[in-house]
Amino acid sequence: MSAKDKTPATETILTGPLSGSKKVYVPGKLNNIKVAMREISLSPSKLANGKTEENFPVTVYDTSGPYTDPNITVDLKKGLPRLREEWISKRGDVEQLPDFTSDYCRQRLVDKSLDGLRFEHLKKPWKAKPGKNVSQMHYAKRGIVTPEMEYIAIRENQKTDYLKEQLNSQHALLTQQHAGHSYGANTPKGLITPEFVRDEVAVGRAIIPANINHPESEPMIIGRNFLVKINTNIGNSAVSSSIEEEVGKAVWSCGWGGDTLMDLSTGKNIHETREWIIRNCPVPVGTVPIYQALEKVNGKAENLTWEIFRDTLIEQAEQGVDYFTIHAGVLLRYIPLTAKRITGIVSRGGSIMAKWCLAHHKESFLYTHFEEICEIMKAYDVSFSLGDGLRPGCIADANDAAQFAELETLGELTKVAWKHDVQTMIEGPGHVPMHMIKENMEKQLEECHEAPFYTLGPLTTDIAPGYDHITSAIGAAMIGWFGTAMLCYVTPKEHLGLPNKKDVKDGVIAYKIAAHAADLAKGHPGAQYRDNALSKARFEFRWEDQFNLSLDPVTAREFHDETLPAEGAKIAHFCSMCGPHFCSMKITQEVRDFAEKQGVEEENVLKKGMEQKSKEFIEKGSEVYL
Amino acid sequence: MSAKDKTPATETILTGPLSGSKKVYVPGKLNNIKVAMREISLSPSKLANGKTEENFPVTVYDTSGPYTDPNITVDLKKGLPRLREEWISKRGDVEQLPDFTSDYCRQRLVDKSLDGLRFEHLKKPWKAKPGKNVSQMHYAKRGIVTPEMEYIAIRENQKTDYLKEQLNSQHALLTQQHAGHSYGANTPKGLITPEFVRDEVAVGRAIIPANINHPESEPMIIGRNFLVKINTNIGNSAVSSSIEEEVGKAVWSCGWGGDTLMDLSTGKNIHETREWIIRNCPVPVGTVPIYQALEKVNGKAENLTWEIFRDTLIEQAEQGVDYFTIHAGVLLRYIPLTAKRITGIVSRGGSIMAKWCLAHHKESFLYTHFEEICEIMKAYDVSFSLGDGLRPGCIADANDAAQFAELETLGELTKVAWKHDVQTMIEGPGHVPMHMIKENMEKQLEECHEAPFYTLGPLTTDIAPGYDHITSAIGAAMIGWFGTAMLCYVTPKEHLGLPNKKDVKDGVIAYKIAAHAADLAKGHPGAQYRDNALSKARFEFRWEDQFNLSLDPVTAREFHDETLPAEGAKIAHFCSMCGPHFCSMKITQEVRDFAEKQGVEEENVLKKGMEQKSKEFIEKGSEVYL
Repeated sequence: MSAKDKTPATETILTGPLSGSKKVYVPGKLNNIKVAMREISLSPSKLANGKTEENFPVTVYDTSGPYTDPNITVDLKKGLPRLREEWISKRGDVEQLPDFTSDYCRQRLVDKSLDGLRFEHLKKPWKAKPGKNVSQMHYAKRGIVTPEMEYIAIRENQKTDYLKEQLNSQHALLTQQHAGHSYGANTPKGLITPEFVRDEVAVGRAIIPANINHPESEPMIIGRNFLVKINTNIGNSAVSSSIEEEVGKAVWSCGWGGDTLMDLSTGKNIHETREWIIRNCPVPVGTVPIYQALEKVNGKAENLTWEIFRDTLIEQAEQGVDYFTIHAGVLLRYIPLTAKRITGIVSRGGSIMAKWCLAHHKESFLYTHFEEICEIMKAYDVSFSLGDGLRPGCIADANDAAQFAELETLGELTKVAWKHDVQTMIEGPGHVPMHMIKENMEKQLEECHEAPFYTLGPLTTDIAPGYDHITSAIGAAMIGWFGTAMLCYVTPKEHLGLPNKKDVKDGVIAYKIAAHAADLAKGHPGAQYRDNALSKARFEFRWEDQFNLSLDPVTAREFHDETLPAEGAKIAHFCSMCGPHFCSMKITQEVRDFAEKQGVEEENVLKKGMEQKSKEFIEKGSEVYL
Repeated sequence: MSAKDKTPATETILTGPLSGSKKVYVPGKLNNIKVAMREISLSPSKLANGKTEENFPVTVYDTSGPYTDPNITVDLKKGLPRLREEWISKRGDVEQLPDFTSDYCRQRLVDKSLDGLRFEHLKKPWKAKPGKNVSQMHYAKRGIVTPEMEYIAIRENQKTDYLKEQLNSQHALLTQQHAGHSYGANTPKGLITPEFVRDEVAVGRAIIPANINHPESEPMIIGRNFLVKINTNIGNSAVSSSIEEEVGKAVWSCGWGGDTLMDLSTGKNIHETREWIIRNCPVPVGTVPIYQALEKVNGKAENLTWEIFRDTLIEQAEQGVDYFTIHAGVLLRYIPLTAKRITGIVSRGGSIMAKWCLAHHKESFLYTHFEEICEIMKAYDVSFSLGDGLRPGCIADANDAAQFAELETLGELTKVAWKHDVQTMIEGPGHVPMHMIKENMEKQLEECHEAPFYTLGPLTTDIAPGYDHITSAIGAAMIGWFGTAMLCYVTPKEHLGLPNKKDVKDGVIAYKIAAHAADLAKGHPGAQYRDNALSKARFEFRWEDQFNLSLDPVTAREFHDETLPAEGAKIAHFCSMCGPHFCSMKITQEVRDFAEKQGVEEENVLKKGMEQKSKEFIEKGSEVYL
């Protein structure tokens, strides 16, 4: 067995608790659930009068899963605790199958050469009982609030309600900039309720990717009236990477804030790699099933068949994939619209289907068998991520006829999916200059009946390979503000190579920035609280608090320590940017202290000063402007 | 002499030619000038029929100066060639002074302990003859087109006119997305003319920072009808850095694309450090004179006087500083407006002046002596960068009463400066959530009579110290699109420490991205040409061309080589992201080839296919939707 085929070793992958934080659990009211969150402890403020004032801990959304709970011992070989298993079985509409349904899966399981690679503690798959539909949309439409929905409501609020009770409403940290976009207009007092979650899912404005065969996943929601989410892509290719590396990247990306994870493997042992990932992944997992199907026909797109694709869907649904990217909108008549583009078709799925369509002179099996696909997906609650196979691959190709034609078809397919109560989101570009981003969002909302938009970036220029996490974070922040529900990250390696762990982290942080900037602009309740708490810590030179409140405490601390490594510098009232004798924040404090020493409020000091000197000011002022 | 006091060694600083590029010079028509540009050579395209097709070289704006011209030998000890000296002296309105005017400067020059530190080849300063005004605005208002203006017109066009002659107008690379903002509406055929430059400077909508004592600087313009520019900040502090490091950072930042450079030194030997920087800097240099003035009074803001400040202005003007940040808008009555902020006053200049105002109970000497400042500046052509001393330091403080009150005063001062024909730009924030950026820009245009806006970021969230080049590139791209003329870069070390060379580069690249994304959205003629050329190279797997066209060829090449180091991979039709058997770009080419093999155009293939199969499609389609 080569190094590439190594199975994951627990010790190399676990992350441990996050800096300055502890895992807390908020109990449900409707269900016996406990919602994981991250609580960042803060040190007290030192007031000018020598006293101290307590700072409440800041609770933030936590995607890191059980890995960061010191009370849970994770064994990658056994997989994560099966959080949702009881909720699912209690609903009484599922059954455990005697064996895996997919032919391919069964072949892999009896292949002795794979024994060393395989996840050991495989469970038999669950499926809806005949005639049943187990999608969250199906429950929502029937008025049912599932434990998943309550979990999400509590999770999205990030204890905002507690905060408001603890602090008086005049507290500076509760300041919230008036938002341009009205956030969650229908939510009571700006808080998310389980019923609001249900209603958004019922009308298709949000999805809860939650395959019944991935009970390890902590419930989360993708919709524009909720926090903006980010997806991370991992996966091997024929050229590089091992199972261990990929599981490592998965856990790593969740640790830094990835909300969902796509396994885009196109190399060896895709089936086994995916099993390891899903069993150890605390967030929903998405795939592009056509990638694996293509491997099964040795890369010859024209040899793909509905039967092979169907078996792949079932194989992956029974492993627990939470959403499938399916490029069913690539119609034969749209393909010529891409011929004059500078970069043609850049979506892999899109180009595979285009090639198939041309070779067979007919519409793809994704389109012609779309209702059968829905039937499979509703039996496991797999969500659609309708792929944008004709997305633009460069600025010159943005918002063109090919892209918008496909979008229209995706809108039609959304209605078909909803007829089956299959949850659906829509994938979007790609490469779009800033002034064309809004049009993209508006068109998507209109054509796709407000189904959640899930965009890759978009990149706002093509000239910075090596930095496309930045070119795209610009577009992502904007489109997130305009209403995109989930942002697919782009790493610095985009266009150049497969991301390593550092690239994954760089991509995740850039996208956490974009998503949070969008949440601020949308006025998501509580989003700004973290900014305010960090800024207050910064102003008061509480360095450790500033680090711990940041998206990446490790890097913030390292950067600070590069010039001022001494422990004492962490409580010093200056930094290396200005040095000890020249700090604007220190001077501002002196301004405040100065006012205080006079025994009056600053305003009064100034009024007094102004009165005394007003004549003088006017004279001088006049002098200036004569 | 300690290591910190080392003077710069040429060999450690020079950059050499840029990857795949050569320096070219475009001659002027009105003046005997030659405008430096960077020409990136491209390899030919390999066509499907086995033939090749030439790709014209791409000419881009070049800020790197003589350092990247192999025909020029730079000696840091002697400084750069004095490009503009003849143009300046020819105008006949300047005289060389017998000695430096500033007392402080003269003290430094006779201090023997500084001999080892001092730039050796000092020239006596130039100044306007008595009664003369040597500002570019003064000439512009009189209808004069200076060589600087012609240089800028040619430079801004980046040979767009040549391109259009070489390529037919249907050429894919000339594609330009219809822009949201009408760019340079008054320019003939979208090309910048010397007269247009003059007119924009005359009305104050653009500035040409061009101190007559910095003739080494290549003319450039800051205005919203021109390419968006970026500024880089360097400078030592009491805690760290040496002259050699700072000159190194200056040359380095120009090499990567910095359009202007601010020396914000607050540490030792500020005067000598600045001399070294200016003599070797091919771009305009800005400073915040109050920083040095404060050092002269040992950091005691209340001890600052007009006389000390005045001497500092003259000292720096005679060294060749091209623009001064002056926080003259911090009025006494605005200070209390900052008291309830989370982060008070974060501008160093702003806090110094606030402290002074409170200590003395009167308006600052910057405000009361504003006209005298104008008199000094017009004698050397130093431009104003009116500082935003009350800019917000966090999201919660954005667009507040303090910021907007100061902006109003800056607008009044702009009119005073213009009365003296002193070129003026206005500094802006800081920290602003996305939905409040536009308001900021609109208010600035209105209050400041369209004087160019020069913003720091803005950062769109506070929660990512260590990544503020990204949080701010988002805001910078947006505000650049809305009309900001120059973006002051932010490095990853912002809020944490002094940037090193890597940080400077990361900041510059992030801001080149923001500025270019803004140029695309504004529809600057020729901006998209580079995107299109790079995307075409990408599509055709011309890896070396893709690297060379990128903002950072070094990093792009390194990232590619990390997984595919072999030289052969540079011409391979795949990359490590998908591997050799699974590449969407390859498949797209196959789609095109497939169409070609049929002997007809793709459209016809499809039409034929559609006709043959139309009945079938309709049946299948109906089946799907029944």
